[in-house]
Amino acid sequence: MDAEARLVELGIELPEDSPPAGLYVPAVTSGDLVYLSGSGPARPGGGYVTGKVGTDQGGTVSLAEARRAARLTGVQLLTRLRGEIGSLDRVVRVVKLLGMVNTAPGFTNTPAVIDGCSELFIEVFGEAGRAARSAIGVAELPFDICVEIEAIVQIRP
Amino acid sequence: MDAEARLVELGIELPEDSPPAGLYVPAVTSGDLVYLSGSGPARPGGGYVTGKVGTDQGGTVSLAEARRAARLTGVQLLTRLRGEIGSLDRVVRVVKLLGMVNTAPGFTNTPAVIDGCSELFIEVFGEAGRAARSAIGVAELPFDICVEIEAIVQIRP
Amino acid sequence: MDAEARLVELGIELPEDSPPAGLYVPAVTSGDLVYLSGSGPARPGGGYVTGKVGTDQGGTVSLAEARRAARLTGVQLLTRLRGEIGSLDRVVRVVKLLGMVNTAPGFTNTPAVIDGCSELFIEVFGEAGRAARSAIGVAELPFDICVEIEAIVQIRP
Repeated sequence: MDAEARLVELGIELPEDSPPAGLYVPAVTSGDLVYLSGSGPARPGGGYVTGKVGTDQGGTVSLAEARRAARLTGVQLLTRLRGEIGSLDRVVRVVKLLGMVNTAPGFTNTPAVIDGCSELFIEVFGEAGRAARSAIGVAELPFDICVEIEAIVQIRP
Repeated sequence: MDAEARLVELGIELPEDSPPAGLYVPAVTSGDLVYLSGSGPARPGGGYVTGKVGTDQGGTVSLAEARRAARLTGVQLLTRLRGEIGSLDRVVRVVKLLGMVNTAPGFTNTPAVIDGCSELFIEVFGEAGRAARSAIGVAELPFDICVEIEAIVQIRP
Repeated sequence: MDAEARLVELGIELPEDSPPAGLYVPAVTSGDLVYLSGSGPARPGGGYVTGKVGTDQGGTVSLAEARRAARLTGVQLLTRLRGEIGSLDRVVRVVKLLGMVNTAPGFTNTPAVIDGCSELFIEVFGEAGRAARSAIGVAELPFDICVEIEAIVQIRP
């Protein structure tokens, strides 16, 4: 796995991670699995992408914007993962994602939103980045972020 | 475990799986655990059972219909599990279910819905099919399916 | 880990667990991980804390009450964990929490609610109680409980 080299090719710089918004840690490693806390769409310049997804349903975030926000969420997950394991080259497989979309009532195309994160992971890790997944619409997310994703990642020692 | 024989006794035929609705795979195996993607109530004749659950709360799907839909969701999970591991006889234990119900506002009997899946798993795997579980009401599900369930299953090599 | 001694110091008595509200078990152990079913804020005198969280948003449960309810939920998780493994002194690490808040529309401070459970776990297990976590707002919870939390805990044999 040459994930770190891929990141450079893709022109992606992982930013500083923001501190947890509560009594938790960004990641816990147990055996060869890393459990990553629910992460959000941190803007490169600071702040998060917020609002309800689904402009046809009265929300303020379009599907295209939400998909980009899911990619930003993927960047935060990678930041936290590297912070936990040192180098993304240790990744064996992205095992599982739980994608949660802050949906306006009636917006149901949640898989297309979470694809923004999955696409990034496939670009970085190849087919090892194509995980098992659920993509659901939830009532509210912390501080009104428009998407939150948690992940389980298998690593080598 | 004679789960395959039980399926025959129960008269259950596992259908073809539908392709994933996004950039994910139906299942990932890591060590002796299989992580199954969130699955839905695929009708035997095609299509999914859709709508909000709770006819007394303005929804279009009754509790009884939702429970049957959760059983159909269980069938899709078994289909994907067999596709991943070859034979259901390799199952040691259904470890964990996360059941998500597309609730009409005010419908709170989500455990009775997800019992439709758990009942199937107990019929097929015996007490090894009785998992740890959460059963929650979510705001929206992909393409308005009425229930979605993800699972973690322990297998033998 | 002297978690049992800490419980005594904190004056916390773990009550009898209530039976599962459906076809599931309170906990499943797989390898060195215990998967705890979604648990709720059981009152010491019986019954659960119910209602939508966010009194400024039309709910009936304040943030302070919800945080105390999350602590009660933590007590139920510890009860089920001890029931599964015999002694909390076997705990190596609280790996992952999924905290689900029964939010009134517009209440987004879900991390502060789930902190009520995390704080308890840190009191009992020290830094090993500080887990990876997601804290989300869901549409409905079983029987209208105001918070539900599921957990993965690593134990020694």
